[in-house]
Parts: sequence; C-alpha cells; structure tokens
Amino acid sequence: MSALGFIGLGVMGQPMALNLRKAGHALSVYARNPAQSAPLLAAGAAVLATPAAVAQASDVLFINVSDDAALEAVLFSREDATSGATSGATSGAAAGLPAGGIVVDMGTTSPAFTRQLAERLLAQGVSLIDAPVSGGQAGAIAGTLSIMAGGTEAAFQRVLPLLQAMGGNIVHVGDSGAGQIAKACNQIVVSATLLGVAEALTFAAQLGVDAGKVRQALLGGSAYSKILEIHGQRMLDENYAPGFKAKLHRKDLGIVMAAAQAAGMALPATALATQLMNALVGNGQGELDSSALIEVIQQLNKAAS
Amino acid sequence: MSALGFIGLGVMGQPMALNLRKAGHALSVYARNPAQSAPLLAAGAAVLATPAAVAQASDVLFINVSDDAALEAVLFSREDATSGATSGATSGAAAGLPAGGIVVDMGTTSPAFTRQLAERLLAQGVSLIDAPVSGGQAGAIAGTLSIMAGGTEAAFQRVLPLLQAMGGNIVHVGDSGAGQIAKACNQIVVSATLLGVAEALTFAAQLGVDAGKVRQALLGGSAYSKILEIHGQRMLDENYAPGFKAKLHRKDLGIVMAAAQAAGMALPATALATQLMNALVGNGQGELDSSALIEVIQQLNKAAS
Repeated sequence: MSALGFIGLGVMGQPMALNLRKAGHALSVYARNPAQSAPLLAAGAAVLATPAAVAQASDVLFINVSDDAALEAVLFSREDATSGATSGATSGAAAGLPAGGIVVDMGTTSPAFTRQLAERLLAQGVSLIDAPVSGGQAGAIAGTLSIMAGGTEAAFQRVLPLLQAMGGNIVHVGDSGAGQIAKACNQIVVSATLLGVAEALTFAAQLGVDAGKVRQALLGGSAYSKILEIHGQRMLDENYAPGFKAKLHRKDLGIVMAAAQAAGMALPATALATQLMNALVGNGQGELDSSALIEVIQQLNKAAS
Repeated sequence: MSALGFIGLGVMGQPMALNLRKAGHALSVYARNPAQSAPLLAAGAAVLATPAAVAQASDVLFINVSDDAALEAVLFSREDATSGATSGATSGAAAGLPAGGIVVDMGTTSPAFTRQLAERLLAQGVSLIDAPVSGGQAGAIAGTLSIMAGGTEAAFQRVLPLLQAMGGNIVHVGDSGAGQIAKACNQIVVSATLLGVAEALTFAAQLGVDAGKVRQALLGGSAYSKILEIHGQRMLDENYAPGFKAKLHRKDLGIVMAAAQAAGMALPATALATQLMNALVGNGQGELDSSALIEVIQQLNKAAS
C-alpha cells in the first residue's frame, strides 16, 4: 500500500483527506493554517511542518489548493514555511518528491499551467495527474465527488483506487490538462445553468407568480438540473451560505476565458456569466455561494427583489 | 364521466389525445390535416369536421396548437374550415362551447393573451385552464409530461384527473396565465442550459479533448441536467431529428422576451439565447431539434466544427 500525502485542507481538501485516511491509507498532511490539520491528526494522520516533508514521506502526493499561484508555491517555493522568510533552502514539495512518485492536483488549475507543470515534474521522474472535482462540500464529505482526470494511463491506473475513496463518477478524460479542460467545461455549464435559473425565478416573481411553484413544476421536465434543484432552492430561501464561493467560481471562469482567448474562441454565454459573476464579487458578495448570482439579476430588475 | 374534445393533433397533441382515449374517455377530435386524425379514429375517437362541432360534443375541450394566432383561429374563426372561404357563420370552437364547460390550452401561448382569453371565455360561462407542457414527444407518448397549470382551483380540480392521463408532474402554479409564465420560465432555463452545454462541448473539442468523455464526467456532478444528458448526446451524435423544433423554441423565446419587455425586465442570458436561436432559424435550420444551437457556436468557432 502506498504512503500518501495531502497538502491543502480547506473546505474540500479536509473531507477528501479524511476519506483517504478512512480507507486505511498511511497519510501525512500539511496545511498553511494548522487548525485545519486537527481532524486529520485525530484520525491518525501525521501532521508535518513543510510541503517538502510531506512530499518526502509520500509515493502519491495529493494537492488541493486554490489556484495556479498557490500550487506553484506549494511545489516550488523557497520560502520558509514556518517563518515566512525567504531562505536559501527550498521548502517546496517538488524537491522532496521521490522519482517514480505521482502528484495528483485536485484543485482547479489552468490547463496551460497544468501541461507546463507535467513537463517540469516529468524532468525529475514524477508523474502528474490533474484530477479536479465537482460535487461540492457535500460530495467531498460523502466521498461521491465527480472526478475528471488527465495524465498517462499508467499513472491514472495507479491512483484510481485512491480516487475511488473520494469520488463516485471518475473519468479519465485524456492527457495532462484534459481533467482541467473538463472542469472548465463543468464551470461553463454550471454558470450558464445558474444564470438561466436566476433569470427564470426572477421573471416569475416579477410577473406575480410563486417562484417556488415554478421551480416545482420545472423539476419534472426538460428543465431539470442539479442546479435548479439545489441552487434554485437556495435562491428561493436566499440562503447563500457556501457551498461553492462566488469568488472561486469567478476565478474558475477567469481560467475558462483565458483559455478561450488563448485558443481564439468566442464563448458568448460564458462571457456574460463571467461579467455578472464579476459584478457579484465586486458588490462584496464573493464569500457567498455562487447561487447568489440571482442577486445581480434582481438588482438589474429591482421590482422583483 | 366527461365527454372530451381535442383539437390539434401534431407531434405532441396526437399522443396526448391517444392517452386520454386509452384512459377510457369518450373523445371527439379535429385536426386541420385529416391524416393526423387517423390513429385517433382507429382508437375509437369521433373525428368531426369543425372545431365548433368538437366543442359542441365536449364538456372539456383540450386545444394544442402552435401559437396565439392559431389558438385565436380555433376558438373564434369565422372561416369555413372545410373550404377555407370566409363565411357568415362561425366554425370556431368558442361558439359551440356549453356554459359550464372548460377549455384546456396545452400549447405554449403568451401569458397576456391567456389572461385576455380567460376573460372572453368567462363572459360565456366557460373556464380556461392554461396547461402547457414540458417533456417532449417522448414524454407525450409515455404520458409522463410535466404540466404547468393556471386557472381557478375549481376548474383545475375538475381537469386534474384528465391531465393525469397525460402527465406525471402536474403543478397548479396560480391563476390564469401562471401556467404560461411557468412554461416561459422553463424555456428560459432550457435555452440557457442548452447554450452552456453547447459552449462546453465546443470548447472541449477545440482544445483537443474528447467531448464525449467530458459529457460523461460532467453527468456525475453539479453540471448534471436533462439537457446535458439528452441534448448533449444529440450534439455529440449530430443527431438533430426533433424532438423539439428550433423554430418553436424561437417562438417560445419570442413570448418570453415580449413579456419581459412589457414588464420592463432585463434577461441578459435569455436575450443572448434568443439572438443565437434567431441565427439558427435564419440559417435554415428551424426544422431541426433546438439542440442544433451548438451549430451556431461551432460556426462562431470554425476550428471546432
């Protein structure tokens, strides 16, 4: 059985790491905020002082941090993790990785960065699997996440039994970056659907109809989506406790739009959703669940709010 | 048991009327195209020569025609239905309706027209239930349509057992027009979701990833929708046999945008979807299933198509 490491124990990472531990794996962890490590310590994981120390103890290293810059820092930082001062010695995880090891990036990262990262790691004999997830905190806790993986078939097969401790629907989409492209597609679909549900419920309210009954009627037909079911109910309840924060959804849409621009692609609905998500975050609501996007539509149409 | 009438035996109306007949109801029918009546005749329905004749034979009259103008013509036309010439006598159904009767409009009609129609019928002692549906031809055949109803509680309760022969999820949304507003909301959600799925699958293909695997990965997470499952597969197969024709989806979006303009509402995503559906129909593809909307996104991004 492999020795596992997990770096990044936030809203998603903590329950995902706990599910690996519950599956019986030896596990060492690192989190910038030590309080996030406590449940892992209680579950028998080793809490170590630096990403490099976790990497040295691991054949397979899972990382779940917020963006490209954070992932770069975890892997290649020369900053002393305990003092914050820049030192000559690296505390980044890459230096600690054994040849033949595998890094599994479970955060949402840009496809271009992922492909570069795969090449950098390969130069030291380490494989990268990009394996971003969908399904939210509830899916992370239940171990039913949808996992979209990119990388070589051999590396994917080695980590598949580990991913199965965290997710239900696990698809090997293609080579390095393919998982991140699938995640970008996920965010395209989710943002367009959120926007459609937000406009529909606002339209119903403004035309004097019970938006809750409209949602109920729509759930039985072609309009059914997880977003209508879960986020539509949050919109009706004005319950925007995350869930998935608007600022992270905006970050992910930024990845999509940058990739589309680099590829010379027009994505008109995603561009619109990105603009409206910018407004939501700009209005100071970035910490809310991204279903609060309906508030931007309601602000446009004040009579409905 | 009530004597029922059904006018409008198209792709949706024909299987819906057949389900009423299979439930054991006495049924008389009228269709502009006599060939559409043949399966009803074989199932024991009476095929009559004019809408007025069907109305005279019915306590509850179902109508499923394509738009406001067609509904107006069915109910109030003075045109001789057999010769096409305008005569002094009305052949419209309204003149034949018995006081205490109910008209059930199962087509997609504008909310404003529906409210006016309810008043006109009430003046002759007839109730109107607006009861548009979602679920497509497959749902119509299986009798599992989602039905969104507007009108008085008393009239709704009288027709509910009849609607149950045609639909599964039946919601009384509110007063006259509320069913049509719910249907407008349905089309808002469906068009935004279609657009999101179309952009995601086009993005995946253009970035060199297997769009079918992306769809598979997304089906297990927050991006799940009936549209991703059914229409996403149609897009991958380039199988645009309707289903629900783009020209009808465009007509429905026209109803939504007219209602939004009348109410002084901005619906940015729906406005965008309407523009792109206009382009699809303008490109000569109005007879295709509305999932062909992906072709407009592909034309924008020719490298992906």
